Amino acid sequence: MAQYRVLIDANDEKGLVHKISSIFYNHDLNILSNSEFVDKESNKFFMRSVVDGDVRKEELSSEIIAALPQDSGVKVIEPKKKNIIIMATKEMHALGDILIRHEAGELEANILAVISNYDDLESLVSKFGVNYITLSHEGLERSEHESKIIETINSFEDVDYIVLAKYMRILTPRFVAAFEDKIMNIHHSFLPAFIGANPYKQAYDRGVKIIGATAHFVNNNLDEGPIIAQEVIHVNHAYGWRDMQRSGKDVEKVVLSRALKLALEDRIFVYANRTVIF
Amino acid sequence: MAQYRVLIDANDEKGLVHKISSIFYNHDLNILSNSEFVDKESNKFFMRSVVDGDVRKEELSSEIIAALPQDSGVKVIEPKKKNIIIMATKEMHALGDILIRHEAGELEANILAVISNYDDLESLVSKFGVNYITLSHEGLERSEHESKIIETINSFEDVDYIVLAKYMRILTPRFVAAFEDKIMNIHHSFLPAFIGANPYKQAYDRGVKIIGATAHFVNNNLDEGPIIAQEVIHVNHAYGWRDMQRSGKDVEKVVLSRALKLALEDRIFVYANRTVIF
Amino acid sequence: MAQYRVLIDANDEKGLVHKISSIFYNHDLNILSNSEFVDKESNKFFMRSVVDGDVRKEELSSEIIAALPQDSGVKVIEPKKKNIIIMATKEMHALGDILIRHEAGELEANILAVISNYDDLESLVSKFGVNYITLSHEGLERSEHESKIIETINSFEDVDYIVLAKYMRILTPRFVAAFEDKIMNIHHSFLPAFIGANPYKQAYDRGVKIIGATAHFVNNNLDEGPIIAQEVIHVNHAYGWRDMQRSGKDVEKVVLSRALKLALEDRIFVYANRTVIF
Amino acid sequence: MAQYRVLIDANDEKGLVHKISSIFYNHDLNILSNSEFVDKESNKFFMRSVVDGDVRKEELSSEIIAALPQDSGVKVIEPKKKNIIIMATKEMHALGDILIRHEAGELEANILAVISNYDDLESLVSKFGVNYITLSHEGLERSEHESKIIETINSFEDVDYIVLAKYMRILTPRFVAAFEDKIMNIHHSFLPAFIGANPYKQAYDRGVKIIGATAHFVNNNLDEGPIIAQEVIHVNHAYGWRDMQRSGKDVEKVVLSRALKLALEDRIFVYANRTVIF
Repeated sequence: MAQYRVLIDANDEKGLVHKISSIFYNHDLNILSNSEFVDKESNKFFMRSVVDGDVRKEELSSEIIAALPQDSGVKVIEPKKKNIIIMATKEMHALGDILIRHEAGELEANILAVISNYDDLESLVSKFGVNYITLSHEGLERSEHESKIIETINSFEDVDYIVLAKYMRILTPRFVAAFEDKIMNIHHSFLPAFIGANPYKQAYDRGVKIIGATAHFVNNNLDEGPIIAQEVIHVNHAYGWRDMQRSGKDVEKVVLSRALKLALEDRIFVYANRTVIF
Repeated sequence: MAQYRVLIDANDEKGLVHKISSIFYNHDLNILSNSEFVDKESNKFFMRSVVDGDVRKEELSSEIIAALPQDSGVKVIEPKKKNIIIMATKEMHALGDILIRHEAGELEANILAVISNYDDLESLVSKFGVNYITLSHEGLERSEHESKIIETINSFEDVDYIVLAKYMRILTPRFVAAFEDKIMNIHHSFLPAFIGANPYKQAYDRGVKIIGATAHFVNNNLDEGPIIAQEVIHVNHAYGWRDMQRSGKDVEKVVLSRALKLALEDRIFVYANRTVIF
Repeated sequence: MAQYRVLIDANDEKGLVHKISSIFYNHDLNILSNSEFVDKESNKFFMRSVVDGDVRKEELSSEIIAALPQDSGVKVIEPKKKNIIIMATKEMHALGDILIRHEAGELEANILAVISNYDDLESLVSKFGVNYITLSHEGLERSEHESKIIETINSFEDVDYIVLAKYMRILTPRFVAAFEDKIMNIHHSFLPAFIGANPYKQAYDRGVKIIGATAHFVNNNLDEGPIIAQEVIHVNHAYGWRDMQRSGKDVEKVVLSRALKLALEDRIFVYANRTVIF
Repeated sequence: MAQYRVLIDANDEKGLVHKISSIFYNHDLNILSNSEFVDKESNKFFMRSVVDGDVRKEELSSEIIAALPQDSGVKVIEPKKKNIIIMATKEMHALGDILIRHEAGELEANILAVISNYDDLESLVSKFGVNYITLSHEGLERSEHESKIIETINSFEDVDYIVLAKYMRILTPRFVAAFEDKIMNIHHSFLPAFIGANPYKQAYDRGVKIIGATAHFVNNNLDEGPIIAQEVIHVNHAYGWRDMQRSGKDVEKVVLSRALKLALEDRIFVYANRTVIF
């Protein structure tokens, strides 16, 4: 008996659910959960099913592919721990939250390493027996520094996700291209408000009454990748920007961990710079 | 071309989605939206599909019934305005919110009448050309008063829902039995906290930091029916109970209107004193 | 016995609270509530006290002015209904919410008139016996149209606030200058995200997971005035932009009414394009 | 130059602010922040001021006491790290959150020890160099077990707070009496809903659409002490009680840490089983 997560995206047409559910039925599979969504605007169909039963992954996969329109996306995934690399700079809260969850066995993930441009967080990370790699940017051009990081990441096998847990340096398109669709970031504002540097200062200057955090995949345009999760908290006139920053940390860490969990459970589809989340 | 909302609840077994989607496919129906849920604890399957195409309602319904286990619940509903009666006492906010939405054409509903035990709200209701019926409880025993209300409601045909928009008298089991599964109430607390009279006073006395409102169907046990929607707001020590009451109104009206909209769109399943909402 | 709201803003220096509270004490006033805030960054002191007792307004005011640094702002206000004019276009929800609250006696306000560029809302407004004035923009240049509105507003005496309850036309600097610090707007996004036209469409295109609404005073830069109140709701991939728009209405109306209430109760200070709210 | 937090609670009467601010003014103190609240119902006055300047603590304190009605509460506190003991059982999230914040230097606290009835958390706590004490309840009567804990706590000097970070055993009145007003608990429900064991199961059975967590001081009646902070999250029909439990952890840890921070910064007044929080 195996369990599979079946993820399908296809151009919508009549009968898709019928065809897929027929395949499940013919193999006598249990459907543990099933979610569908049709985006009428783009005519796209999305489906995530969790099934268990007695069928080989390749067989299930090829039958589904055969039943669907050409160019459909089909993934049949066996649940197992994914491999992640975390990048951070100096702040402890987002990284610490992931480390505690990992320690508690809450995450379907192996943390291969934490990479930082400073050694400030080494003491924390080492406590958990996790590999800490300092790659200082000092004295290096941006491209040289990134080359070292890329090389380091590529020294690990089967990296599923790179999680930017408050990594405070801008990534170049070359870096992003090297790990397409694999980089997840927490931005410390309610995007698309306050793109760029020091969003809490920007929020303070604008006199907002709510601040937030946004977890998103990273694409070439800074802070403009597909949004996975957002959360907010209320503030008032008594909050200076450092108070906002302090309070914002609680939102940042919760949102990043929530987004990471969704990715690890294969619940996210990305298309047209947006996400469908089941 | 007709549009139908298909609502199914059944004991779960393999192949349900397959069977139902086959029927849709064979009639060449478009699936406009499709939601499923299996409650593993009770082994119950729920499905709500919106389809359009060229098939008679009775035909679609009987085919689905034939395909499912016995004792399954199957409803095939043509979207149209439902008939509602609103009951209120003296407060204007929840009733007013429904009247404005109705006036704006936001509700799939005809308001047959507003029934109150006072005439305070007549002036408001009459502005909107809606029938206002005062049935005073003064000088009447509870059962006599309820008999008059029941009689009045029964003088209307095809009443789909009775909406208690801050109707402040307790209903007896007889009344509830007369309109089983049709009565929706807004309770001015975050149920099950503060059941009974003056929940804001209770909340104040308990020193809570959050207050809320709960829309629910009414069954024989006061404030214990299946919950449809809940919402909360933060309060602090500066709120006396009348401040809580004032602030709570904004939550009450929004939650009741949201619950009513869900009911009018046939999005609610009730079972085991809980709701499944698609 | 009179009640006063005392509003003070001053450059901060030692002894301000002492000096003001001495004046209250010397007149044997009750302090019903008292709030203070010092913005360290700008060295500004803000205070709102509600007092009652036996003193003339002019006397209290002049004593406080004498005790404070020059150029301090001092207002001593007797609570009474303020005069408001509402501007709207075609949407009913925000306007309707204010009308119902007004009818329920919740607002410390007289509604002098509703001005719209269409007659769509006349039927609703007239129900409440409120003056409805249609000033169509058709065939007029923007400046001509605004002149007519300005003229109409100026035909009323003592207008305290102009409330833009989804008035969908852009106001020119001339209009804003004519009613400085008196115009309150509801913007249907979580500012500063999605400035400008159709923010729900913008929000949809960006794939956000939260939408919001912002009540703010209007200054010359569109959507950039001081923020009074903000609120948000969660959305997901199943929301098209029209769904966002529909759901957003509930937030818009609640936020605008909340901001209006704060203004009517003299709880808002504006400085440096931000608000202090007691 | 010293900084003090001045906390005052007194029966309200005219002139309190005047008298206290006079003392501050006469000593030429800066008022860094100032909050007041009068509970009209109970006629109680509360004030928290942060001042700095050149005055001895005892002098300031005795002057304020002399100026106020007898039986007033007056505390003049120099900001410094408070001593806390954490009690936990097996769950990692709330404890882990405090440990990470402590490590990050966010908490004004020394963690003297973590006491648990199991050794499950020893590995985590030891990583942070914090004293871990296992006091198993096995084979002991409740009173014996509590005696051992009381003895252990009393072996530390100057314990300011005992933080129950998901300590899953009921405390007897004797234990509570031994550490009056010092015990803070996180209850995994939105109190007063779901008092007692397994609140998530209770919440699931009731079919709620929102779950929450409550941080409160502990008094003799289980789960009925004064509430410090509450927070909620939305759930839906797809949440079994274990899903609620999992999601609830994020709320629990954030709420407990927020309440702890308020206590460490001397922002909480307790009276009449409620809290005033500045």
